Amino acid sequence: MFEQNRERNLSMVMDFYEMTMANGYFQDGVGARQAAFDVFYRQNPDGGGFAIFAGLEQIVQYIENLHFSAQDIDFLRAQGMFSAEFLDYLAHFHFSGSVYALKEGTVMYPGTPIVTVVAPVIEAQLVETALLLEINHQSLIATKASRIVRAAQGRGVSDFGARRAHNMDSAVYGARASYLGGVDATATVLAGQMFGIPVTGTMAHSYVMFYGDERLAFEKYARTYPDACVLLVDTYDVLQSGVPNAIRVAKEVLEPMGKRLKGVRIDSGDLAYLSKKTRAMLDAAELADCKILASGSLDENTITSLINQGARLDGFGVGERLITARSEPVFGAVYKLCAVEEDGQFTPRIKISENVEKITNPGIKRLLRVYDQDGKSVADLMTLRDEPLPGAEPYRYVDPIRPWRVRYFENCVYEELQQPIFVDGKRVYTLPTLAESRAYVHQQLHQQVWEEEQRIQNPHVHYVDMSPRLYELKMNMLHSSHAGKEC
Amino acid sequence: MFEQNRERNLSMVMDFYEMTMANGYFQDGVGARQAAFDVFYRQNPDGGGFAIFAGLEQIVQYIENLHFSAQDIDFLRAQGMFSAEFLDYLAHFHFSGSVYALKEGTVMYPGTPIVTVVAPVIEAQLVETALLLEINHQSLIATKASRIVRAAQGRGVSDFGARRAHNMDSAVYGARASYLGGVDATATVLAGQMFGIPVTGTMAHSYVMFYGDERLAFEKYARTYPDACVLLVDTYDVLQSGVPNAIRVAKEVLEPMGKRLKGVRIDSGDLAYLSKKTRAMLDAAELADCKILASGSLDENTITSLINQGARLDGFGVGERLITARSEPVFGAVYKLCAVEEDGQFTPRIKISENVEKITNPGIKRLLRVYDQDGKSVADLMTLRDEPLPGAEPYRYVDPIRPWRVRYFENCVYEELQQPIFVDGKRVYTLPTLAESRAYVHQQLHQQVWEEEQRIQNPHVHYVDMSPRLYELKMNMLHSSHAGKEC
Repeated sequence: MFEQNRERNLSMVMDFYEMTMANGYFQDGVGARQAAFDVFYRQNPDGGGFAIFAGLEQIVQYIENLHFSAQDIDFLRAQGMFSAEFLDYLAHFHFSGSVYALKEGTVMYPGTPIVTVVAPVIEAQLVETALLLEINHQSLIATKASRIVRAAQGRGVSDFGARRAHNMDSAVYGARASYLGGVDATATVLAGQMFGIPVTGTMAHSYVMFYGDERLAFEKYARTYPDACVLLVDTYDVLQSGVPNAIRVAKEVLEPMGKRLKGVRIDSGDLAYLSKKTRAMLDAAELADCKILASGSLDENTITSLINQGARLDGFGVGERLITARSEPVFGAVYKLCAVEEDGQFTPRIKISENVEKITNPGIKRLLRVYDQDGKSVADLMTLRDEPLPGAEPYRYVDPIRPWRVRYFENCVYEELQQPIFVDGKRVYTLPTLAESRAYVHQQLHQQVWEEEQRIQNPHVHYVDMSPRLYELKMNMLHSSHAGKEC
Repeated sequence: MFEQNRERNLSMVMDFYEMTMANGYFQDGVGARQAAFDVFYRQNPDGGGFAIFAGLEQIVQYIENLHFSAQDIDFLRAQGMFSAEFLDYLAHFHFSGSVYALKEGTVMYPGTPIVTVVAPVIEAQLVETALLLEINHQSLIATKASRIVRAAQGRGVSDFGARRAHNMDSAVYGARASYLGGVDATATVLAGQMFGIPVTGTMAHSYVMFYGDERLAFEKYARTYPDACVLLVDTYDVLQSGVPNAIRVAKEVLEPMGKRLKGVRIDSGDLAYLSKKTRAMLDAAELADCKILASGSLDENTITSLINQGARLDGFGVGERLITARSEPVFGAVYKLCAVEEDGQFTPRIKISENVEKITNPGIKRLLRVYDQDGKSVADLMTLRDEPLPGAEPYRYVDPIRPWRVRYFENCVYEELQQPIFVDGKRVYTLPTLAESRAYVHQQLHQQVWEEEQRIQNPHVHYVDMSPRLYELKMNMLHSSHAGKEC
C-alpha cells in the first residue's frame, strides 16, 4: 500500500450517533449481541440500468486500521456523554465481526444486499458511516465513468476532474473509481502514484499565454516533448491561429526531427464544428495520424451528441461532470439492520415505511446472479442464507413488484455474489489489483450484461427476485406490523 | 493543527500538465520569471446573489507543506518525461512566491480576483490544482450552507451529510465549510475533533429496530442520556407509535428523574403534516418545551416550503443536499494568467474566448469593496494595483456590462479585500480561528450585504465595476488581438 494511507487515522470519520448508540448498547450490556446489517441502494443514478460496486479496497483498509487513539478517546471524553468503561472499551477496540461483499467492480442492482456486516452490534454500528461514504462515493463515480466510457464508443476517455473535486480524496479516489469504471487515464498525479493509473496531461492555456506568441509556445513544447506532443489550440482562435500554428510546428519543428505531431486538444467552442474543420486542415497537411482531443463540460450526453453530429474526435478529457457526477451527485446506499441475535439465533428485522421502496428485506440473505445457457445474466435472486441453493430442477421465484406472476428458473447457472471478506475479525479475502477489478467490469459488460441494460437512456430493468421463503417472511412481518389503524 | 493533517503529503494532488509545463519552463530557462495568476469564478451557484470564500486555511497548510519526497521524485522519473535537472530542482522545491487572498468567509462575487498568486512561473503553475480544488470545494459548501441557514430563518441547522460525501475529506472539510457558512453543528465526529465544531447526534432507526420494541428502545436511550434525550420517532409510524411512545417515556422515565424530553426527530413522511400533529400531541401532554427536528432530503427549497406551510419544526438535519451541494455540485473557480514579468516589469496578459464571460481581466489588480455611508456594500471595484486608491472626491467607474453608462462613487468607504498571505515565500498572515471566520460571515450578512442580495431566488445582482484604466487596458488588448478576420 502507498505510504500516504497508512498514516491516516480515519476511525473518527463517523456520525456522532454511532457513538451515542454504541455507548447505549454498552451500558445496557447488549453490545456483544450479534447484529446483521445490509448495505443496499434504491435507484441507479441517471436512470441507468445498473451501477458498479466500488470502494471495497478502501473499506478493507479502513476496517483493518480501525482503532481509537488516546487523542480520540480524550475528545470523546470531553463530550461528557460516554461512560469511562465504554471509553476504555474503545481504547482496546478492534473489529471482530464478519463482512461479506460483492467483488469490487461487480455490476449491481437496486435493492440487493451488496455488503452484509455480521458483528457485535456496537462494532457493526461503528463502521456504518465510513462504509457508506466509501461505497457511495466510489460506486457513484465508477457508475458515471462507465456511462461516459460507453457513450464514447471506444474512443479514449481521461479524467481531468481534480480541480472541481470535492476536496483531495474526492480527486484521488474519484480517479480510482473512474479508472475502475473504464476510463483510460487520469490527470491526477497522486492517483497515478497510488493506484498505478496511467497519467496524462500536456499544457494549459497559461503556457501559451506565458510565451505570448502561440507558435513560439508550441515550438517550445514540441522541442521539450518531441515524442508526446499534444498542443492545446483554443487559447486565441482554433481555426485562425491554433491549428495553423500546430501544423507549422509539426512541419517545421517536429518533422525535421523525424517526429510526428501526436494530437491537438480543443477545450472550448463548438466542438463538433471545430473538430470537422480541424480534421480537414490536419488531413490537408498530411497529418492524418494527428489525433483530435476534446475537453470542456463533457459527459455521456454531450459525447453522444458530438458523435451523432459526426464530430471528428478521437478522445475526451472529462472533468467536473465526471468527478462530481454532476447530473446526480448522490449515490444513496443505506445500511439497514436485517437480523439480531436473540437467544443464540438470528431473528429477522424489518424497517417499515410509508414509502414502499424504503421497506427493507428481513433476514440474513444470499444474493445469487442467475445466468442463462449463453452466459447472459438474466436476473438476481435473493434467498435467505439458510435456504438450500437452487438446483438443476425448475425453481420458482417471486418478482416482488409483480408477485402475482408465477415464474420458474430452469437450467440456469447461479453465482453467489457476496464473498466473505472478514470472518470473525480475520481477513479471509485477497484483494485483487485495481487492474484486475477493471478487467472484471469490462468482462461483465462485454459478456454477461445484456446490451439492453447498458443503454444510457431507458434501459431494460434487470429482474431482482426473491425466493418464496424470503418473500413470505417479508409479507408475514409486514402484515403483523400493520395492526395499527389509520387516523 | 490537528495531527491528522501534518502527516499527509498532498503535493502530488495536481494535474500532470502542471508538471509537464513546469519542466518545459525549466528546460527553457524561464522558470524563474515571475507570473501572476488570478483565481476567480464566473457564476454564483443556484442563481444566488453571492458566494462565500472558503478554504484559505487549508491552502496555507498546503503551501507551507509543499515539497516532493524521494518517492514522489521516483514516480515522476519513471514517467520518462522529465529532465534530471528538473527532478533535482523539485527535490529542493519550496514555494518562494507571494499569495494575496480574501479573508476566509468573505462574501464574494463573480469575476473578481479572490486569490492572486505572484511567483516564479513554475511555482505559480504547480500550486494551481490544489488551490482550485480547495477553493472550489469549500466555497461551494459554505455558499450552500449559507443558503440553507438563511432559509431556516433562525432555526437550528446541523450537517448530517458524511455518509453521502464524496469520500473522507469531503465529509470533514465539507463540515468545516458548512459551519463557516452558518450551520450550527455537525454529526461528523472528526470534523468536531479537527475544527472544534459542536457535534450532534442521537440514534438511528437501527437502535429502535435492534430492541424490536420502540418504547423499550426509547426507555433505554432516556436512561442512558437523561439530559440530552432526543428520540427518533419514525421507525414504524410517527403518530401511531413514535410520538405516543416518546410521550410515554417522557412521562414515565424522564419526569420521575426530574428530566425533560429534549426533542423528537422525524426523518420521513410528510414533514409539514406530521410536525403539526406531533406538536399538538406534545403540547397536549404538557411537553411544549420538547423540540421537533426534521431530517431527510432537506435543502433551502424544501425548508422554505415547510416553513411556508406552517410546519412546526425547530431545527433541521441536512444531509446529502448540503454535503454534495446536490443542486449544483460544481463551483467553477478558475486560475488564469494575468501578467508576466518581461524585462523586469509585469506585462498584462489576457485570455480571449468566443464566450464573452470567459475573457479574463488583464494585469495585477486590486479588489475594493465599496460601502455607502450606512456601511452597506454597494459595489466591488477592480483597479490596477499600481493605480492610486480612490479618494474622497467623486470617482468614475465603469460597469463592464453597461460601459456606456457614466457613474461616480462619492463619499464612499473603500476596503481592500485581498490580504497578503505569503510574501516572497514567507507567511505574513495570521489565520483567524474558524469561529472568527464564521462570525465574519455573520457580520457581513447582518450588517453589510443588502437583504436583496440574500434572497434565495432572483437576488439583486451586485455591481462589479472597473476603474477606467483597467477597462481601457482590457479593451485595448481585445482590439489589438482581434485583427484576425472571420472564416
